[in-house]
Amino acid sequence: MISSREDVTRMILATKVSKGLRWEVVAAELGLSKEWTTAACLGQMTFNKEQAETIGRLFELSDEAIAWLQIVPHKGDGGIPTDPLLYRLYEIVSVYGGAMKELIHEEFGDGIMSAIDFSLDIQREENPNGDRVNMVMSGKFLPYKSY
Amino acid sequence: MISSREDVTRMILATKVSKGLRWEVVAAELGLSKEWTTAACLGQMTFNKEQAETIGRLFELSDEAIAWLQIVPHKGDGGIPTDPLLYRLYEIVSVYGGAMKELIHEEFGDGIMSAIDFSLDIQREENPNGDRVNMVMSGKFLPYKSY
Amino acid sequence: MISSREDVTRMILATKVSKGLRWEVVAAELGLSKEWTTAACLGQMTFNKEQAETIGRLFELSDEAIAWLQIVPHKGDGGIPTDPLLYRLYEIVSVYGGAMKELIHEEFGDGIMSAIDFSLDIQREENPNGDRVNMVMSGKFLPYKSY
Amino acid sequence: MISSREDVTRMILATKVSKGLRWEVVAAELGLSKEWTTAACLGQMTFNKEQAETIGRLFELSDEAIAWLQIVPHKGDGGIPTDPLLYRLYEIVSVYGGAMKELIHEEFGDGIMSAIDFSLDIQREENPNGDRVNMVMSGKFLPYKSY
Amino acid sequence: MISSREDVTRMILATKVSKGLRWEVVAAELGLSKEWTTAACLGQMTFNKEQAETIGRLFELSDEAIAWLQIVPHKGDGGIPTDPLLYRLYEIVSVYGGAMKELIHEEFGDGIMSAIDFSLDIQREENPNGDRVNMVMSGKFLPYKSY
Amino acid sequence: MISSREDVTRMILATKVSKGLRWEVVAAELGLSKEWTTAACLGQMTFNKEQAETIGRLFELSDEAIAWLQIVPHKGDGGIPTDPLLYRLYEIVSVYGGAMKELIHEEFGDGIMSAIDFSLDIQREENPNGDRVNMVMSGKFLPYKSY
Amino acid sequence: MISSREDVTRMILATKVSKGLRWEVVAAELGLSKEWTTAACLGQMTFNKEQAETIGRLFELSDEAIAWLQIVPHKGDGGIPTDPLLYRLYEIVSVYGGAMKELIHEEFGDGIMSAIDFSLDIQREENPNGDRVNMVMSGKFLPYKSY
Amino acid sequence: MISSREDVTRMILATKVSKGLRWEVVAAELGLSKEWTTAACLGQMTFNKEQAETIGRLFELSDEAIAWLQIVPHKGDGGIPTDPLLYRLYEIVSVYGGAMKELIHEEFGDGIMSAIDFSLDIQREENPNGDRVNMVMSGKFLPYKSY
Amino acid sequence: MISSREDVTRMILATKVSKGLRWEVVAAELGLSKEWTTAACLGQMTFNKEQAETIGRLFELSDEAIAWLQIVPHKGDGGIPTDPLLYRLYEIVSVYGGAMKELIHEEFGDGIMSAIDFSLDIQREENPNGDRVNMVMSGKFLPYKSY
Amino acid sequence: MISSREDVTRMILATKVSKGLRWEVVAAELGLSKEWTTAACLGQMTFNKEQAETIGRLFELSDEAIAWLQIVPHKGDGGIPTDPLLYRLYEIVSVYGGAMKELIHEEFGDGIMSAIDFSLDIQREENPNGDRVNMVMSGKFLPYKSY
Repeated sequence: MISSREDVTRMILATKVSKGLRWEVVAAELGLSKEWTTAACLGQMTFNKEQAETIGRLFELSDEAIAWLQIVPHKGDGGIPTDPLLYRLYEIVSVYGGAMKELIHEEFGDGIMSAIDFSLDIQREENPNGDRVNMVMSGKFLPYKSY
Repeated sequence: MISSREDVTRMILATKVSKGLRWEVVAAELGLSKEWTTAACLGQMTFNKEQAETIGRLFELSDEAIAWLQIVPHKGDGGIPTDPLLYRLYEIVSVYGGAMKELIHEEFGDGIMSAIDFSLDIQREENPNGDRVNMVMSGKFLPYKSY
Repeated sequence: MISSREDVTRMILATKVSKGLRWEVVAAELGLSKEWTTAACLGQMTFNKEQAETIGRLFELSDEAIAWLQIVPHKGDGGIPTDPLLYRLYEIVSVYGGAMKELIHEEFGDGIMSAIDFSLDIQREENPNGDRVNMVMSGKFLPYKSY
Repeated sequence: MISSREDVTRMILATKVSKGLRWEVVAAELGLSKEWTTAACLGQMTFNKEQAETIGRLFELSDEAIAWLQIVPHKGDGGIPTDPLLYRLYEIVSVYGGAMKELIHEEFGDGIMSAIDFSLDIQREENPNGDRVNMVMSGKFLPYKSY
Repeated sequence: MISSREDVTRMILATKVSKGLRWEVVAAELGLSKEWTTAACLGQMTFNKEQAETIGRLFELSDEAIAWLQIVPHKGDGGIPTDPLLYRLYEIVSVYGGAMKELIHEEFGDGIMSAIDFSLDIQREENPNGDRVNMVMSGKFLPYKSY
Repeated sequence: MISSREDVTRMILATKVSKGLRWEVVAAELGLSKEWTTAACLGQMTFNKEQAETIGRLFELSDEAIAWLQIVPHKGDGGIPTDPLLYRLYEIVSVYGGAMKELIHEEFGDGIMSAIDFSLDIQREENPNGDRVNMVMSGKFLPYKSY
Repeated sequence: MISSREDVTRMILATKVSKGLRWEVVAAELGLSKEWTTAACLGQMTFNKEQAETIGRLFELSDEAIAWLQIVPHKGDGGIPTDPLLYRLYEIVSVYGGAMKELIHEEFGDGIMSAIDFSLDIQREENPNGDRVNMVMSGKFLPYKSY
Repeated sequence: MISSREDVTRMILATKVSKGLRWEVVAAELGLSKEWTTAACLGQMTFNKEQAETIGRLFELSDEAIAWLQIVPHKGDGGIPTDPLLYRLYEIVSVYGGAMKELIHEEFGDGIMSAIDFSLDIQREENPNGDRVNMVMSGKFLPYKSY
Repeated sequence: MISSREDVTRMILATKVSKGLRWEVVAAELGLSKEWTTAACLGQMTFNKEQAETIGRLFELSDEAIAWLQIVPHKGDGGIPTDPLLYRLYEIVSVYGGAMKELIHEEFGDGIMSAIDFSLDIQREENPNGDRVNMVMSGKFLPYKSY
Repeated sequence: MISSREDVTRMILATKVSKGLRWEVVAAELGLSKEWTTAACLGQMTFNKEQAETIGRLFELSDEAIAWLQIVPHKGDGGIPTDPLLYRLYEIVSVYGGAMKELIHEEFGDGIMSAIDFSLDIQREENPNGDRVNMVMSGKFLPYKSY
């Protein structure tokens, strides 16, 4: 009996390691970005039927698990991360968040950058002083309006 | 008596509103990016002597305040933000953090994206379905090494 | 020197009590809903120039305070509320949140109800067993999309 | 041995996914609203004997599980939600809570909107700019009285 | 400028100590119970005009302070108390809460004891083994109903 | 192997539901109050040998479980409750705690109401406007003394 | 205007440092133990009239401050201490608390050591390997009783 | 497979209850104090080989469990205790901690009482007004030194 | 099915105790420092293929477990430690952190000591007054730069 | 009136910036290490009379402030730091703490590294790949003993 999406995520991770799969390959099978695909495999996004079946085939999942991949999951990891890579992302918000807020408001007025109508792209940026991680976030600006 | 950088930040914010200054204009006076400049004016970065004097002139600060701008500040806002714009940034880390970690490790191996050797660029991305916020982060990859 | 919107909110609250103003009257002066107007006076929304001047006149604010009303504020009260009226609202999310999530996803698929493109209407609902509070929330559905 | 209502909720969720049931259909079988029915199936409300037996039949539950459905559950999810849909609901309380408090008191005096003598209705609101979620909350006003 | 009820509570407490007033005497002046009166003077309840004026006279408050006494306050002290007397009350809920819940549900079914339609009475209970504190709480039972 | 009292509490709860036992009946078998009996069955009090054997017979427990009932348990549920019935009890302490403290000190001087030498009685209070829950707490006053 | 005991504690601490007073001397003036006296001067205990006047004389307090010394204070410092000396005391409870609980119950049965009917004695214990702090706590055992 | 000391502690507690062992008897078998012995059996101290074998014999442990008794455990229970007996110990630190700090510094200067070079002794103190718990703590004073 | 690195860490710890292995010996087998090796075996570092096979041989791990050793783990233990040895390390940061920050900035300007390009060395430091633990940390200085 | 050491620390910091003093110079005036001196000036250590007078002269403090420098302060900054430099130190404990614990116990047995009988030395370590921060910690090993 599978009673949560987390159960399926654990199956995916176990199979990924034992079969040595790469996220890029999984994404190519789906014909989608590696960013959305990985987030979805980690239980943060919802697959449609065809996508779920592809994932099921790659990770050798049962029909029950494939059904769960099509259910909207409970998303988000709470709290402040302790993993160093994740903490650096949190720290960027902690140190630069005020500036991001000021500059988005200066440019657009009152509102937010959507985290739903949003896409992410991560690339290696070659650099003679040491390669860099380049992350591009694009989110629709949503204005507050008076009524 | 000024006993912390926060005192100076409050003076800068008060003057910014009463004089109607824009961060872009402040950045242009310094000859630096609007992202670094805003973060610095909000008390997250250290100005050198010349920069501090420019800021002092623009915001009509005392010599004591100008001296404080050259002291390394205590950085970072703690906790989980409640402001909607800031929360969306936190939520992106909460929802996409796992995927970011997986993909950076898949590309680079064990290590992190630096939040120190790091730069940020925020632009308006025109779009017929509603303009978007485009944020580019570039941070040096720092590998863990065995020893 | 005013260095935050909270300073202005305190002035508004002090004057409201001493002059005995009602939010409904303030809203009528602005020609806007009482819900948006009250949230804005409490420091959660941004006024445009004309609105800010109306508020300034009603609450006898200085030019500096009126300038602050036009600055995007830092929004949101953190934590879990202790005030009984506020706690009941939090409890509704705590008890009914799961059902809200299931039903919105069942109807719309994966996505959220926007808290930005959002409006609120609060009315007295007459009832022989005791009058009721009727709160209507309307928020645009924002879908997650694969990419 | 079933020792808590959570055990039964997990069974209901597992069966819902494997059988592809919809909450609306479950509600129609009970002859009750989809909002109350879903909250109850998620372990937040108490079923009477007849209702519990209907649920038991739909979700293929044992007699022991059906007995647990008639026991008053331990309700409420603690903390601040991380799921984006749930967080938006929390954020509405965080941003608009002060205004809700002011306006309910302005209309009714000191007291609260009950979260017990309360009902919820969620509907799709068609809109050319994108459909909206419409949530109506109705709760009895309960006044504080001196004694 | 008074900008919150807490300011008035502090004035009341300062005057109570310097004039040596007793809560029982204050309650008698109002013609109300000592329990409601004390809670109200501590900023947890709302006075009507006549009551506020009596309190104003006893505690030598300004008209502005008297106006604030008639505004619905922000109620409740958050967190887990550290004062030993208050902690024992919290501990009673921690140790006996489960039993209270079981027995109220066994007697009344699903619902709560109201903390709004509620009264409190505290008396000395003489006892040869040491006098006891006797606290009687009476709150209306509010049932959950299906809909 | 039973390694904590919680294991026994879960057995008691499972049997209570499957056999449809009522706490009042359990208390009558022990010849004790329903309040103490329920708290004890929920793992908050220690049974003597004879009491434990009665509980063992009613709930069909093993000798090992009966031995655990005679061991002093780890008591108290931590944190701030989320269940609405329990939260109302916590809220009473949050809203009325200050008044309780003032009035007990006014009557008895510095000290506390014991939560150990304490008893609780819960009754239905019939009322034409809706029946009420009546809770009487009686705790020995324990004075602080100088030394 | 003094509106809390903390105000008086701050005066006492300031005078203690500027006049170079020792707690032992203060205790001798009162004819009480140094442990109770120090706790009381730090705002944790209530002085009677005569004691308060002695303290007032030693620390040059106003009549208003002396009146506050006779009011039962809000006691206890919350949270987990960060000061190393205080943390070691907390750590003793963290490491040895389980053993203290087991041994007190083994000797006395179910109940607690009172923290109200309690006294403390701190002495230097001479030792050739380095002097030791000797702390003796004596608290009345209070049994839980069934009813 | 045993992968932590907690597993062994659970076995010890289960056997203690089923065999009806007393800590005093266990301590006598080891020839050590009941305080250290109990703390060690609860997983807070490290046994040497001979001690571990004695414990293994008394509690019928496997060789693997006996090996774990000789591994330095992860010590300390976090947070603020909810059990009433444990809470009173925490409350003593909360109420008297400031006085303990002042008096140890007044006698010894800057430093701490060690919680490592530390011993504890708990005894029944007979008293006609009700027996008392007597706890003696002895810890080496460790001074801070400048360098 | 192994679905996380923690599963493998538990196997390593269980085998270490049952076989009586020492970390120094494990490190010598790898030809690396005992500090990196121990951190890696505890699940904080990533092994390469050859290292993982050596660890697999020493700790008798399955191929699946050996594959997991080569996956970048989720690192870091959250919160404030309760174990006395770990707490002292935290306390050093709490007491000396401000001085560390001031002195690193005085010497290097604005920036940090890297925790990634970092190495640790722990040695016994013989001392007639009692041997000492000597810990040397070496981390690359990473400067903040304006841009 | 100075009522806490924090007041004096703020004076020292204000003067340090306005006079442009360096910690190394302050340490040389005292004839002590820069590490102890800086920690002490930040309010974490106690000065003796002669040291306090030197500090008073350098930072132009009043006699009252100089008296406070000789009082044992309340030490330690609580919580998890947000400043990036401080966070890296916390992260080292989070990532390497388990290994530090294992290796100290492997070398010394059960016990801790003292944070009181402790010294710290921070130096620049020249390195062609970028200079490094070298931090040496030396703390007495304190063994746990059975008794």
